Amino acid sequence: MLYFENDYSEGAAPEVMGRLLETNPVSQPGYGEDEYTLRAVSLIRKALGAPEADIFFISGGTQTNALAIGGLLRPWEGVVAAGTGHINVHEAGAVEFTGHKVMTIPGVDGKLDPEALRRYLAAFHRDPNREHMVYPGMVYISHPTEYGTLYTSGELRELAEICRLYSIPLYMDGARLAYALGAGPGPGLSEIAELCDVFYIGGTKCGALCGEALVFPKGAPEHFLTVVKQRGALLAKGRLCGAQFEALFEDGLYERLGRRTVELAMRLKDGLLSRGIELFVDSPTNQQFIVADEKLLRALDAAVRYSYWEPVGEGRHAIRLAVSWATPESSLDELFAVIDAALSEKA
Amino acid sequence: MLYFENDYSEGAAPEVMGRLLETNPVSQPGYGEDEYTLRAVSLIRKALGAPEADIFFISGGTQTNALAIGGLLRPWEGVVAAGTGHINVHEAGAVEFTGHKVMTIPGVDGKLDPEALRRYLAAFHRDPNREHMVYPGMVYISHPTEYGTLYTSGELRELAEICRLYSIPLYMDGARLAYALGAGPGPGLSEIAELCDVFYIGGTKCGALCGEALVFPKGAPEHFLTVVKQRGALLAKGRLCGAQFEALFEDGLYERLGRRTVELAMRLKDGLLSRGIELFVDSPTNQQFIVADEKLLRALDAAVRYSYWEPVGEGRHAIRLAVSWATPESSLDELFAVIDAALSEKA
Amino acid sequence: MLYFENDYSEGAAPEVMGRLLETNPVSQPGYGEDEYTLRAVSLIRKALGAPEADIFFISGGTQTNALAIGGLLRPWEGVVAAGTGHINVHEAGAVEFTGHKVMTIPGVDGKLDPEALRRYLAAFHRDPNREHMVYPGMVYISHPTEYGTLYTSGELRELAEICRLYSIPLYMDGARLAYALGAGPGPGLSEIAELCDVFYIGGTKCGALCGEALVFPKGAPEHFLTVVKQRGALLAKGRLCGAQFEALFEDGLYERLGRRTVELAMRLKDGLLSRGIELFVDSPTNQQFIVADEKLLRALDAAVRYSYWEPVGEGRHAIRLAVSWATPESSLDELFAVIDAALSEKA
Amino acid sequence: MLYFENDYSEGAAPEVMGRLLETNPVSQPGYGEDEYTLRAVSLIRKALGAPEADIFFISGGTQTNALAIGGLLRPWEGVVAAGTGHINVHEAGAVEFTGHKVMTIPGVDGKLDPEALRRYLAAFHRDPNREHMVYPGMVYISHPTEYGTLYTSGELRELAEICRLYSIPLYMDGARLAYALGAGPGPGLSEIAELCDVFYIGGTKCGALCGEALVFPKGAPEHFLTVVKQRGALLAKGRLCGAQFEALFEDGLYERLGRRTVELAMRLKDGLLSRGIELFVDSPTNQQFIVADEKLLRALDAAVRYSYWEPVGEGRHAIRLAVSWATPESSLDELFAVIDAALSEKA
Repeated sequence: MLYFENDYSEGAAPEVMGRLLETNPVSQPGYGEDEYTLRAVSLIRKALGAPEADIFFISGGTQTNALAIGGLLRPWEGVVAAGTGHINVHEAGAVEFTGHKVMTIPGVDGKLDPEALRRYLAAFHRDPNREHMVYPGMVYISHPTEYGTLYTSGELRELAEICRLYSIPLYMDGARLAYALGAGPGPGLSEIAELCDVFYIGGTKCGALCGEALVFPKGAPEHFLTVVKQRGALLAKGRLCGAQFEALFEDGLYERLGRRTVELAMRLKDGLLSRGIELFVDSPTNQQFIVADEKLLRALDAAVRYSYWEPVGEGRHAIRLAVSWATPESSLDELFAVIDAALSEKA
Repeated sequence: MLYFENDYSEGAAPEVMGRLLETNPVSQPGYGEDEYTLRAVSLIRKALGAPEADIFFISGGTQTNALAIGGLLRPWEGVVAAGTGHINVHEAGAVEFTGHKVMTIPGVDGKLDPEALRRYLAAFHRDPNREHMVYPGMVYISHPTEYGTLYTSGELRELAEICRLYSIPLYMDGARLAYALGAGPGPGLSEIAELCDVFYIGGTKCGALCGEALVFPKGAPEHFLTVVKQRGALLAKGRLCGAQFEALFEDGLYERLGRRTVELAMRLKDGLLSRGIELFVDSPTNQQFIVADEKLLRALDAAVRYSYWEPVGEGRHAIRLAVSWATPESSLDELFAVIDAALSEKA
Repeated sequence: MLYFENDYSEGAAPEVMGRLLETNPVSQPGYGEDEYTLRAVSLIRKALGAPEADIFFISGGTQTNALAIGGLLRPWEGVVAAGTGHINVHEAGAVEFTGHKVMTIPGVDGKLDPEALRRYLAAFHRDPNREHMVYPGMVYISHPTEYGTLYTSGELRELAEICRLYSIPLYMDGARLAYALGAGPGPGLSEIAELCDVFYIGGTKCGALCGEALVFPKGAPEHFLTVVKQRGALLAKGRLCGAQFEALFEDGLYERLGRRTVELAMRLKDGLLSRGIELFVDSPTNQQFIVADEKLLRALDAAVRYSYWEPVGEGRHAIRLAVSWATPESSLDELFAVIDAALSEKA
Repeated sequence: MLYFENDYSEGAAPEVMGRLLETNPVSQPGYGEDEYTLRAVSLIRKALGAPEADIFFISGGTQTNALAIGGLLRPWEGVVAAGTGHINVHEAGAVEFTGHKVMTIPGVDGKLDPEALRRYLAAFHRDPNREHMVYPGMVYISHPTEYGTLYTSGELRELAEICRLYSIPLYMDGARLAYALGAGPGPGLSEIAELCDVFYIGGTKCGALCGEALVFPKGAPEHFLTVVKQRGALLAKGRLCGAQFEALFEDGLYERLGRRTVELAMRLKDGLLSRGIELFVDSPTNQQFIVADEKLLRALDAAVRYSYWEPVGEGRHAIRLAVSWATPESSLDELFAVIDAALSEKA
């Protein structure tokens, strides 16, 4: 089978795996006080240009989101997100489990529209019944979004300004941040650290075995380590994530993996478009969403692992083809061969 | 420095690390549907003699406890534990965060006394005000306990019988289960699977980089995977734990690591006793608790990482010396040399 | 000022107040074991034709909703509601505070469309990623809705059938149930008890000082009294609600208050329509929603307490005029006089 | 039957009931903006000498405790209480339901010992593992306690000083505060308002039909009304509590009811002691705890409603006899007659 199902089908990038192997026998303190974690923190601070940043390494994305959102919101607050936001759809209610509401605004291709956010917040604060309502206490965005799309620097800045106007934090879910960075001209790490109040740099989907780096650019809230422990997110062997992120942020590996993957994704998109295949969303990153008819679907089913997204009517279906740092170039050619065969059969 | 601080100071046992390395490039489905996880499940079922067991691999112990307890208790129930239980002391309120009370009974050297449990449950169910009280809905034990002590087969069976009498599950926190198994004549894996309704086989402190195997010997509750996801405990790369537990349960590695470690611990205990050092608790497993005076403490501080436990009065202190699968034999001799020097200096 | 702001501006109906006064000195057991509560339960069971019904009297509506929903949902489940549902908008996140998500479907004039519900549930159970999503575990409707509209018997039956197909309970928020019953041909109490798995009969907005009767027509879930206590909803003086509901369900007072109020509301609607005022929603119950221009608004502001709803564009606004069991007939005439003056002024 | 079971067996004191009756028909805004509530707030502020105090009227004690504790604690914090504290025993886990731990210290006759508290807090803040533990974030006391005992002014001041040293609030559960005030020389309302950061003045057990006044002497935390709503504790007809507390705090009714009740309780205690009956706890307030043998118990069972407390060994039992503002003097004489008959029979 060809693997285009997702970006977490393999283990870790060789450099990351190598670092785990080489540090394995060394005795180190637990709970993130090991030297690899300390060095990873220092490398990330440098990459962000944020020497005051506090960074916590968490094993997965849903946990990171629930921790950041549930840990920062005050009791009367909820988080605002696009309806398609991962926290609203595919995290089994992890935010609500912490006692907080996810309030949704319709998004555009996965993105939260600054104007829509502005209107939502203005309407809330004008509402005479707002004391009986959940206060918007944080704004959640994903970058890349669940549809692979990206915020421009201008859009991110606009969102940040709106948040500052209302004194609420802007939170970025960067599960696939490497692919945003690899895609080019959008906001870089230091701009993200400037504009977001809290965000995470995804490892699991970007070359690590596991782990996400939760970043508070201006310092973490009081006693956050205890909150991490309370939510079950504190690893005894903090070195597991620390060593991996040390490798990812040494010599620019993280962005390099992202760049290489996006180049592959663009080759994929070009190949699909040149074969007349319709895009479901036009994504500049490693997830490509296309519309397939039943015949193409059957051909893919036989040879390719992909992700089914949703029916789009008239016997057609949106599907996702994802590439990752681990996808071999040859897989692309094999995929194109499968598609070509299906298309010619159709004729 | 000599490391006797805990049993999670190094990475993974070489066989475990080797398995991660060798499976690293293979493409596999996510969320625990990879072949390593499936095989680990099958090996553990066999080791337990529990072909119906459902097993979930979770990244750490606090998360596993909160998931098992919070996921099984019904809204009006709490969990009964010894006052020294890890969930009551050192998990930052993770159980309470799920909305449930931890009700404590005084323990003996970390163990829950069956008679005390019986009295507690009988008194509760006789109390005319019990409808205004938290119902005991589960019993929590750790094995080995936080003081390294063990339940005998008879004691475990008695606890299980009491639980069955009241139709509430018995849950075992097996963070260090390898060292219980390695210590000898107590309950083996299949007896644990017979007597406990749910338990976990600890990986993090027993040779893995991370991971605990949460076992429901008679099958998991409905939709438990969704609960795992909701609590942030579902790893996208389920293979990370799957491959490790596959290695741990192939050819009896798990018990072998336990046995070797306990042998070392017994050499440690004998060496301490023969030097006239007093035990704080008499532990048959890998954690040894001793009473040290200020002079000994100072000598250790200069050369050894250990865990401070508590003051015991008259300028004396309980401390913990832990060995693990990773402790070299030579460390013991070096430790004894440090102690001998301190003792002779005292004279 | 004329009071058309809401239906909870006065104390209790005279018969209800009388009962409180007359029972005041009698010594009775606490926590709902008093004779008034027992008799209220018996009267309500009879009115419902549900001799097995369990009934709990709760001080207010938000608490009743949070208790019924949070108390019945299992950990992996959420509740489905129309986007305009009270639990989704005006209860400050009380359901989410219990750890559960409110999933919304667009409604029509406050009503949940059976077809939309059917599609939603079918799509969920077909979704290959549903294990990562919140399971729909209950359906919430309000009757009358937040816009005063009502379900027909056929619609209620259809919703109940859909719920039974998926084995999830149908829950009705009857904060203003008296006015639904008073409006005529829709589902009566016994039909509601047949079709809903749980519902509440509102007291606070229907003639009581406080109190809602939460009904489980086929019996309450295990240990529900303890859940009521745990959520802070168990009144020591259960007689406070018991005596009031005893009065409300003796000699048909509850429905009589509803009928008289709806007659008044229909006189109000006719008077508004005959004056050319546009309805925002066509409501058959005690809440009337109209569209007012700025001039009319100003005239009302000077003489009438009403509820502002929302801007509808072009300088026009939706407002609510509510009548209750306590509204004197003369208030209607005075209101019409205010409106007539405003309208003539405009000419 | 004679009623000595508790202090909530009757409705409201006549003055309170009268106020409800007389205000019943007046139209007023909802949610605590009615004139009775505003006046009650003003009267209580005056009685406290705390013109800045914010006051919320809540329907019952468990709800008030859960709201005050869960609403003020930060995520990493728990509340410290005597093991016998109502929140730890008889509130069905309401505090834990809000996600927070109750940490207990052994008390003395229901009271938290300042020295024990001091040691507990000092030990916590010295513990090197405290980041893995629940932070003590509030101290809970009840006054009178669950055993009817009282803190002296000196003890209360000492507790307040300890709390201030650690910058954590001192919270007083005043479910029966009228009886503390009525008992004499201890802390008065203004001293309580000076020393406690938050407390409640109990209505339900002190002459009201329902309702407790939750007081923040220096002002409420931000958006507390929304938290009240979210926890289901905001009454639409806020007037229900407002009018009652207006009556209770007019002309000193609250303290007068307390004084009269305590006088009766002292007559009860003297009568019991003079008959050779042993006290289980020596209580200066309206709850009297005695030790009864089986014969006395049987005699009481036939004629008196009392509260069974606990077996004390050798066939003897602790029971509670409570008087209230509603207990007629004649009940005492009838009770003594029952006891005398039982005692003479024994001879």
